[in-house]
Amino acid sequence: MQTTFHISTRGQGLYEFTRDVIRWTAGQGDGLLTLFVRHTSCSLVIQENADPEVQTDLRNFFHRLVPPTTDPSMSYLTHTYEGPDDMPAHIKAAMMPVSLSIPVAQGKPVLGTWQGIYLFEHRNAPHGRTVAAHFQT
Amino acid sequence: MQTTFHISTRGQGLYEFTRDVIRWTAGQGDGLLTLFVRHTSCSLVIQENADPEVQTDLRNFFHRLVPPTTDPSMSYLTHTYEGPDDMPAHIKAAMMPVSLSIPVAQGKPVLGTWQGIYLFEHRNAPHGRTVAAHFQT
Amino acid sequence: MQTTFHISTRGQGLYEFTRDVIRWTAGQGDGLLTLFVRHTSCSLVIQENADPEVQTDLRNFFHRLVPPTTDPSMSYLTHTYEGPDDMPAHIKAAMMPVSLSIPVAQGKPVLGTWQGIYLFEHRNAPHGRTVAAHFQT
Repeated sequence: MQTTFHISTRGQGLYEFTRDVIRWTAGQGDGLLTLFVRHTSCSLVIQENADPEVQTDLRNFFHRLVPPTTDPSMSYLTHTYEGPDDMPAHIKAAMMPVSLSIPVAQGKPVLGTWQGIYLFEHRNAPHGRTVAAHFQT
Repeated sequence: MQTTFHISTRGQGLYEFTRDVIRWTAGQGDGLLTLFVRHTSCSLVIQENADPEVQTDLRNFFHRLVPPTTDPSMSYLTHTYEGPDDMPAHIKAAMMPVSLSIPVAQGKPVLGTWQGIYLFEHRNAPHGRTVAAHFQT
Repeated sequence: MQTTFHISTRGQGLYEFTRDVIRWTAGQGDGLLTLFVRHTSCSLVIQENADPEVQTDLRNFFHRLVPPTTDPSMSYLTHTYEGPDDMPAHIKAAMMPVSLSIPVAQGKPVLGTWQGIYLFEHRNAPHGRTVAAHFQT
């Protein structure tokens, strides 16, 4: 079976949608869940959902690793006409997963205790993001 | 069903093979497509296929993040006998996907409007690369 | 079918478990193998298993790219109470795969000649890690 998750973002950072995923596979048997984000300027990551500081730190680390194209260190980049956060978003999208595959046992994704599923938004402006989901028994 | 895509590369950069993939799943129903690159010095990425500058910028960013082992900043690396671009290639291969999973609806991978499927070559010399593909209904 | 692989780690670095995976799918037909690591401070990578220096270099590169939070360059990070290697571990876990999907032909994962499957431990202390595996024909 297939579905689409819709996630509204408000700037760079992590947006959790673990509950939506768990609700969707509930009642199914064993199988494989695949998530695929249909954009080139955001990513899917699995991260600790216990402490929100982890999410802030992740955003800040990647912002420093791949600064906006207005930063002098990034002056060699040429794809700048969609805004200073666009090309860095593409770079981060190459570096972090576009798809995730998670085994499902008795209707439940086998996530570890602290693992949450997040969309990692790399753009500054609000965006409507779609994640395609596939479940196969 | 399974197949193999063969991609000839001519130095570092992105090589698109979206059309080959779309042609292969055409006529199939709903299912899951998985691509797996059988090498440790190149990657699979999904990126914007609208503007070729994005691909140039991606190559240049990762070349600066992981410079050749002849660069003084990389003098701590020890695996150098296969050439100055070899160990950086392995590092990039750890950082970017070796496998991609894409839901397929009515025979069509659910790629977003601007998403193309690329082999990202990390070596300087020409290489023949193989990507194993699996489709499951 | 599903199983769990258990891997004991002794500090940062790569731990190969290719043989366990190959043994598990042996005797099966064609299908898709998925591995998923149930933690947020280690990763799954496919890397060259010919030369152990590659693994040392990988560990050292990522240690320099994402140094401990005691390093002055990382002073902006806030999630530090679980130790100086904890937040860097989360960052590396976002950057490298949490799941891998590998086509299987006649019971054998279609790994390239030099490809080995590794758990990449990002923490300093010994850990017991679990990798969930799913095989679908």
